[in-house]
Amino acid sequence: MPHPSRPTLQALQFAVDAASGRRPGTLLLKNASVLNVFSLQIERTHVLLADALIAGIGEIFEQAEAEEVLDLGGRWLAPGLIDGHVHIESSLATPSAYAAAVLPRGVTGVVCDPHEIGNVAGVPGIEWLLAESENLPLDVWVTVPSCVPSTKLETAGATLDLSDISQLLEHERVVGVAEIMSFPDVIAADPDNLEKVRLAEAIRKSPEGHAPGLSGRDLQAYLASGIASDHEATTLEEAQEKLGCGTFVMVREGSVTRNLKALTPLLRPQHGDRLGFVTDDRLPHDLTTEGGADCLVRAAISSGVDPCYALRCGSYNVAKHYGLTRLGAVAPGYLADLIVLDDLETFQANEVFKAGRRVALKGRLSVTLPPSQADAEAVRNTVSLPPGLSEASFRLEAAGQVRCIEPVPYQVLTKALHVTPTVRGGEIVADPERDLLKLVCVERHGRTGGVGVGLVTGFGLRRGALASTVGHDHHNLLAVGANDADLLTACQHLESLGGGFVAVADGEILAELALPIAGLVTDQPLEQVGEQMAALDRAASKLGNTLPGPFMTLSFLGLAVIPELRLTDKGLVDVLKAEIATLEV
Amino acid sequence: MPHPSRPTLQALQFAVDAASGRRPGTLLLKNASVLNVFSLQIERTHVLLADALIAGIGEIFEQAEAEEVLDLGGRWLAPGLIDGHVHIESSLATPSAYAAAVLPRGVTGVVCDPHEIGNVAGVPGIEWLLAESENLPLDVWVTVPSCVPSTKLETAGATLDLSDISQLLEHERVVGVAEIMSFPDVIAADPDNLEKVRLAEAIRKSPEGHAPGLSGRDLQAYLASGIASDHEATTLEEAQEKLGCGTFVMVREGSVTRNLKALTPLLRPQHGDRLGFVTDDRLPHDLTTEGGADCLVRAAISSGVDPCYALRCGSYNVAKHYGLTRLGAVAPGYLADLIVLDDLETFQANEVFKAGRRVALKGRLSVTLPPSQADAEAVRNTVSLPPGLSEASFRLEAAGQVRCIEPVPYQVLTKALHVTPTVRGGEIVADPERDLLKLVCVERHGRTGGVGVGLVTGFGLRRGALASTVGHDHHNLLAVGANDADLLTACQHLESLGGGFVAVADGEILAELALPIAGLVTDQPLEQVGEQMAALDRAASKLGNTLPGPFMTLSFLGLAVIPELRLTDKGLVDVLKAEIATLEV
Repeated sequence: MPHPSRPTLQALQFAVDAASGRRPGTLLLKNASVLNVFSLQIERTHVLLADALIAGIGEIFEQAEAEEVLDLGGRWLAPGLIDGHVHIESSLATPSAYAAAVLPRGVTGVVCDPHEIGNVAGVPGIEWLLAESENLPLDVWVTVPSCVPSTKLETAGATLDLSDISQLLEHERVVGVAEIMSFPDVIAADPDNLEKVRLAEAIRKSPEGHAPGLSGRDLQAYLASGIASDHEATTLEEAQEKLGCGTFVMVREGSVTRNLKALTPLLRPQHGDRLGFVTDDRLPHDLTTEGGADCLVRAAISSGVDPCYALRCGSYNVAKHYGLTRLGAVAPGYLADLIVLDDLETFQANEVFKAGRRVALKGRLSVTLPPSQADAEAVRNTVSLPPGLSEASFRLEAAGQVRCIEPVPYQVLTKALHVTPTVRGGEIVADPERDLLKLVCVERHGRTGGVGVGLVTGFGLRRGALASTVGHDHHNLLAVGANDADLLTACQHLESLGGGFVAVADGEILAELALPIAGLVTDQPLEQVGEQMAALDRAASKLGNTLPGPFMTLSFLGLAVIPELRLTDKGLVDVLKAEIATLEV
Repeated sequence: MPHPSRPTLQALQFAVDAASGRRPGTLLLKNASVLNVFSLQIERTHVLLADALIAGIGEIFEQAEAEEVLDLGGRWLAPGLIDGHVHIESSLATPSAYAAAVLPRGVTGVVCDPHEIGNVAGVPGIEWLLAESENLPLDVWVTVPSCVPSTKLETAGATLDLSDISQLLEHERVVGVAEIMSFPDVIAADPDNLEKVRLAEAIRKSPEGHAPGLSGRDLQAYLASGIASDHEATTLEEAQEKLGCGTFVMVREGSVTRNLKALTPLLRPQHGDRLGFVTDDRLPHDLTTEGGADCLVRAAISSGVDPCYALRCGSYNVAKHYGLTRLGAVAPGYLADLIVLDDLETFQANEVFKAGRRVALKGRLSVTLPPSQADAEAVRNTVSLPPGLSEASFRLEAAGQVRCIEPVPYQVLTKALHVTPTVRGGEIVADPERDLLKLVCVERHGRTGGVGVGLVTGFGLRRGALASTVGHDHHNLLAVGANDADLLTACQHLESLGGGFVAVADGEILAELALPIAGLVTDQPLEQVGEQMAALDRAASKLGNTLPGPFMTLSFLGLAVIPELRLTDKGLVDVLKAEIATLEV
């Protein structure tokens, strides 16, 4: 079935007939204070719906016939929000669970980048996501992951080549090529990256960007490629420079990366269509407490941004950027994705309509989401440890000065330390007394069976081990531990769960969260996930952990594109040199 | 060859390499005052080109290597203009002649609606236009005419059905379905019209609008269809209402319809991407003296509109509306379509670059336009009079009170009069003494051989006849005359010319302009056309004409969609009733 923003002839005829008064509409919203994203005025008027479409707006509809009449008594009516860039997997959520979390908040669409599931399950993983989100009352638009794998220094579960990307771009709900993150390659005019831009342009879809901190010559070179957007600006100056170069600047408020406050001065109507709102990565807890894209609109309005313009950044501008028509405004011919608000400042959705149907009331879903129709085979049972994995796999030969990873709290960065390891019986061992723990990265896609082993400091574990199959971007199994036996137990338990997070000590499972979908995503409601995550954090603390968000920190220790030192299944990665590093200095 | 806005890999690599400093660029524009349509700031900086693309902008390029360096010494640098909606045929011009007229003025692109040539020559006519404009240094984007024929009350030379439209939409340079003019049909939810909207949307192209004077319920119904734009607003209130409904409002300054002054208060940066500039219809004289889209930018700036925003309406906003990327801005990765201006107020292009190549200097083309490669067979020899056409074909039987057309000077409207005709020998005759002339509309496409005959007043001809094969929208041969013999001579002479304008008296040709391409367009340079048009007007005056623009007036007397009374090859048309009317009341 085509998306409702591509209406059938019958749907169009109904809308035109209802606007003309030849047929009753389905719903008349009377006395609404409409936030008009075009005129930037709040207009007291009436809005007539014809099924999924807005038939008309105006005083003339005061007495229009409709199956249902709802008098808003001056309450506000806004377009449903569209998140311009989000990794749904970062919320450990299926599209359905994500929809359940954000729809009641007024988010009626997201443009997602299934980068994580793509790195685990490749094209079938992305096809699963497309199928899984097919009939949701949340529009799930997709950008095709551009970096699978992210580097050559890791083993991902799959490869997306140019022909895969080209094929996925044909899908109706695919709107572009996702953030082209390998900016050094783009700046180096790497053909593979530039071809990704060309593939998107050839089909009138958008080549999306990711240019953290780029400025001056590097920024010009990156944008010379034709890449159309960026969501990585952290300072006003950076965002202004990018905006002035024609970049669609997406203002981000993620769980870790919070840029809205710094960029708020940019949110002025004169910038028209050039700004949008995105959440990028949100942990389950933040999603269920702060919300999705709604939290940006709410914060912008409370910071004094023109409310209609804040709405425009959170709806129409995003739709327009991706070439999506009939979305993001309360206007005739537009899809009736609507939010009713009791109050503009708090921006709490009282009622939410998706394609003309009431889907949420007072913060709760009022519809049952359709059961999954996707074939889950491609995304389940994705954790296969190397045959014969044993404690011996984690053995490190004795050495002099060695490299050691130190995560920077509250950031994704790590530092590369040089330490003298503790050696016993001819091998380097974890030494909790010195906060020198073993870190392992076990290839878990059943491909190479590679195991990377190194040292990490900062966690402070006195005993036991923590492990995760969320391990950016290759999503191999990462485990940190005070001894090899617990590391192995943790790995084996995660394999039995089909992926997830686990805390173990002395062979005992202290806490766990199963993420059986690609080892990344739960099949439980997000509320339950919050409780299990809290139990995992408590277990980690009990083992001595002192880092904030130990599992998230662990999941980033394999991220071979952000400085300085990382561990993948291929070994230690010196990120600045973009090469594998030896343990011994 | 793909359009340069879809660069090859090599072109992208060159741009990125040049921006990065690994290769010299082709042209460095130093010390430019760049009109930035994104920041709306004028920025003194340097711009480096890499062939067709802008590689980078900024202080960092001050010493950049380039094959050629041009120091602008602070002169202004603006993006090339893009006219959002134009009928090239209205300037009697081929795409090449049109390009020659507007390129030196800084217009580097037009979105044309080949409605006229489509009504004469159908799909082959539009294909001719596409081929004819293929290698021009003016971008000729095309919207597929939506109304061929315009009504059932006329015989056009061709029909464009849904499958024709669908097929033409596939062309790379086709950006939408042209103005859907039959707004009463749209408001009536006519399936054929709504399907045209759906065809455009299905391929991510734009369904364009035409909603003169529509307001309130009618406007809502028209827009409920999904039609995305309008260029017919004549008052500020009308434009504001349309803009508030999400319409892309194109501000028009044609030869006859001049709306810029009324709509200037709308041209404020807060309206962002929602406004564009168009010329719609421009006579050759106006095109060569006032210009094309440049005249809107010039007038807007001199009215006090923010210059950067005026540029944005005349470039980026139009490109964005049609989903054209890399066009309409001075920014990295954009096509190097650039105007150098000595002065912002007068907005006279000193130099014009198209895709990085200098194409005009000091108001003159500096390149030779490529010779036509189009097969002209489809658009030549399009005038075939009915076999056996004779004076008897124009005979009107004696009658009592009859209908008579009266054109309204300076407008396209006509009035429907009732008069008592002059009768001699049992037939109604032209009576110059009473300014009652014969008007004939002769089907000239070789299809039905129909001849419509009626009376007209207002021209004031004392003798002779004027005739035209430009006859909106069906473009049959229209002739007004003081006697049947001169009417016949005029018709026959136009057939021998292959179409055009002619003034005859007593069997003698007083003045003529051949329009051998579809009977609409000259194959001569536009400067010569101006002289011939002036000679035609002088000849008309000599015959007694008192109407301004007698040939343009004549060309609109067959326009069966604008009130009140018209004449087509099928007879008199009562426009308000949308039916054929008898001569006798």
